[in-house]
Amino acid sequence: MTAAKLKLLHRLKSTLPAGELQLNPRTLKNYAGDKWFAAQQPDAVALPRSVKSVSAVLRFSNRHKIPVTARGAGHGYVGGCVPVYGGIVLSLERLNRIKEISLADFVAVVEPAVVTQKLQETVERRGLFYPPDPASRADNFIGGNIATNAGGPRCLKYGVTRDYVLGLEIVLANGTVVRVGGRTHKNKTGFDLTRLFVGSEGLLGVVTEATLKLIPLPPFRANLAIGFASMKNAVRALQAILSAGFLPCALELADEFTLAAAYQRTKSERLRGCRAHLIVELDGQEKSVRHELADLEKIVRRHKPLFVERGLGTNQCEEIWKIRREFSYALRDTGLTKLNEDIVVPRGRLEDLFQFAARLQKKHGLPIACFGHAGDGNIHTNVMVDFNQAGAARRAETTLDELFAQVIAWGGAISGEHGIGLAKKRWWPRAVSKAARELHSTVKRALDPKGILNPGKFV
Amino acid sequence: MTAAKLKLLHRLKSTLPAGELQLNPRTLKNYAGDKWFAAQQPDAVALPRSVKSVSAVLRFSNRHKIPVTARGAGHGYVGGCVPVYGGIVLSLERLNRIKEISLADFVAVVEPAVVTQKLQETVERRGLFYPPDPASRADNFIGGNIATNAGGPRCLKYGVTRDYVLGLEIVLANGTVVRVGGRTHKNKTGFDLTRLFVGSEGLLGVVTEATLKLIPLPPFRANLAIGFASMKNAVRALQAILSAGFLPCALELADEFTLAAAYQRTKSERLRGCRAHLIVELDGQEKSVRHELADLEKIVRRHKPLFVERGLGTNQCEEIWKIRREFSYALRDTGLTKLNEDIVVPRGRLEDLFQFAARLQKKHGLPIACFGHAGDGNIHTNVMVDFNQAGAARRAETTLDELFAQVIAWGGAISGEHGIGLAKKRWWPRAVSKAARELHSTVKRALDPKGILNPGKFV
Repeated sequence: MTAAKLKLLHRLKSTLPAGELQLNPRTLKNYAGDKWFAAQQPDAVALPRSVKSVSAVLRFSNRHKIPVTARGAGHGYVGGCVPVYGGIVLSLERLNRIKEISLADFVAVVEPAVVTQKLQETVERRGLFYPPDPASRADNFIGGNIATNAGGPRCLKYGVTRDYVLGLEIVLANGTVVRVGGRTHKNKTGFDLTRLFVGSEGLLGVVTEATLKLIPLPPFRANLAIGFASMKNAVRALQAILSAGFLPCALELADEFTLAAAYQRTKSERLRGCRAHLIVELDGQEKSVRHELADLEKIVRRHKPLFVERGLGTNQCEEIWKIRREFSYALRDTGLTKLNEDIVVPRGRLEDLFQFAARLQKKHGLPIACFGHAGDGNIHTNVMVDFNQAGAARRAETTLDELFAQVIAWGGAISGEHGIGLAKKRWWPRAVSKAARELHSTVKRALDPKGILNPGKFV
Repeated sequence: MTAAKLKLLHRLKSTLPAGELQLNPRTLKNYAGDKWFAAQQPDAVALPRSVKSVSAVLRFSNRHKIPVTARGAGHGYVGGCVPVYGGIVLSLERLNRIKEISLADFVAVVEPAVVTQKLQETVERRGLFYPPDPASRADNFIGGNIATNAGGPRCLKYGVTRDYVLGLEIVLANGTVVRVGGRTHKNKTGFDLTRLFVGSEGLLGVVTEATLKLIPLPPFRANLAIGFASMKNAVRALQAILSAGFLPCALELADEFTLAAAYQRTKSERLRGCRAHLIVELDGQEKSVRHELADLEKIVRRHKPLFVERGLGTNQCEEIWKIRREFSYALRDTGLTKLNEDIVVPRGRLEDLFQFAARLQKKHGLPIACFGHAGDGNIHTNVMVDFNQAGAARRAETTLDELFAQVIAWGGAISGEHGIGLAKKRWWPRAVSKAARELHSTVKRALDPKGILNPGKFV
């Protein structure tokens, strides 16, 4: 860092309340990265306690062209909050209050650093429901969910984060504080600027407050866990469920490699010979859910399952999801590095995707484990790499190139819920046309003319 | 029109295929307005048969700063497609093909001039479902629904048009054709530009193709129509339904004035003494829906209904909706002009809204009929005016001023589904803060720097 830059940062520090701008090396180190492997130390970490301070940091940074990278819990999977060009990491962690839960209006007003699961538990105690359920909801912040438009298994029925953000308080690049949207469940006043910020990965503004839509908490849930001897049967069962007019909360598939690893870990006899695993979950009124689960079981049994396990009520349902969580641990047990790609294929391409992944695996000698939100075609495709092996990095890259090329050729998307960040930046120009990339730049330049917000990312 | 302008238009005409630019007075007259009362004749009407022509019209107009106002079926309620500054009305009516319905991917690819109801009937025959159901769906186009982010009764459970638009082909102000989004049900590749165009009322670009999300068609539907002696009981019943963990497809309320008019028209004895009318609709698996309807009836009966009518299956359900439609005809029968304001209040303000409307009615001597999508707080508040009466226009304006002021004070929205257009332009600066209006201008300037797209509207 140059002396001039340091002087500038000290000047900013002196204008902020004590402790809100930190320059000590240990803090800088702690704010260098997220769950992905890239990291870059910032020159300073801002820890504002108020919107006023967020605005002051941005106003100052914009005037002096200092990069500002907003950060939630640092739990992203694509390096989205890595401050590539240094500057200031703006951590929202101190803005962590649930400001309001309204039973009458079915809304929650929250600051960005509220942990998603905490919000969910709080509203559920009052009979309300905030559906989006990213796997890391115990650790991540609502603010991060908004920045990445986070999803999760339940999004098949309930939609993603975007669908629950009614209004936002945003601090723009120049420090202006602006409120967009509102607290009504419907709103057609002007452009939908609220959703423009949702999923914008910190490139267009910094969220300091969100008004979220809540819905009535379904009183009951139940699920089925089904093992199959082939992926083909599993996909057919899934299609039969949808064709019968069911839109379950969740339709989660796991493939052969994942199941083999899970068998290694759990020694569960059930998983022996099991080459595909499907979880179907329903929620709603208890009597309806029980009847419908029985109907689903009939549908599923037509597709030669190896076993069908039933979860009735929250506790039993959670037992089933525990198995699902074992899949992730099992993959970790392999000792390999997991390159988790949250690709999406059009729903009709599910079977093709699993077959393609199996072929890629053979071709490049890298294990590929696929599991995830099959209902909406969003399959976490995990390329498993031993980076100590000679040429592994290159082979991994080629594998991903071929995977993304095929996904794009099918009309799929290279990210369903993690975002582009740094991890997918390489494939961004292949996934999005030149005209669409230029449109992104046009919007970016309009909202952040000096390019201080999260520079070095996809726009 | 100046001679220079006419010359320009003739030049454009000569570059387009025959019949795609019309200048004859009768045509111009037919494209002057929508269902609202404002009208303005354009200088020319473009009727392109291809995206190429749409692009050519925009490129030419942008170069010569000719206003271009896109138009769907002309069925809007706020004058959104009135060409305030003349120029070219760009009617999309000839781009009316359903290009694809994919059973495997659960998507439809359509041109903008597909009639919403036609799309719905077509996909329903194949077991698929496109939920958004604006009241005018038999007459309007999907393109218009996208321009206004149209809603409808079913949006309580299923969300609005925005939630079903996965991808768009857009022609920008300068004629550039760009595709945003895609055909996957989940997508986090870049900014959510798709939804920025949804609801942008023709101010940011022209939609020439949309990829829409479809879901499995629920096999059964049923509803209840309930009369109450007081609005208070109706609202309490509605709240009790939500508190029991039900999220019905529709929760539609109508008030005393509406019901009195309906009684005048239908002479239905049921409506005598009826001061509030609630429709609750469920859909899903038949057995579940039947059970749940019985449960709902129990809940409703605790709130002293005057009558409860049941609709089981599509035909009976439609009979119930016919009564609802009579409300609109009944209001028309009064011979008064109906100023239909699609305001939204936070759900907890429903009762307050009906009381406030009753007070306004007394104060200004203008009947006010409220009915609509109570579940999401979106109540069509119809101020009934006899414009032949002295001072009626002024009183109507004052009534609306006070209505909107109160709605805004409650944290409500001045439009839930019709948009701002011309009708609500007067209240736009009161409903949206200066900073938010500036943000609208920033986005508008970035995408349409010469301001040729639908000028004279809210941005």
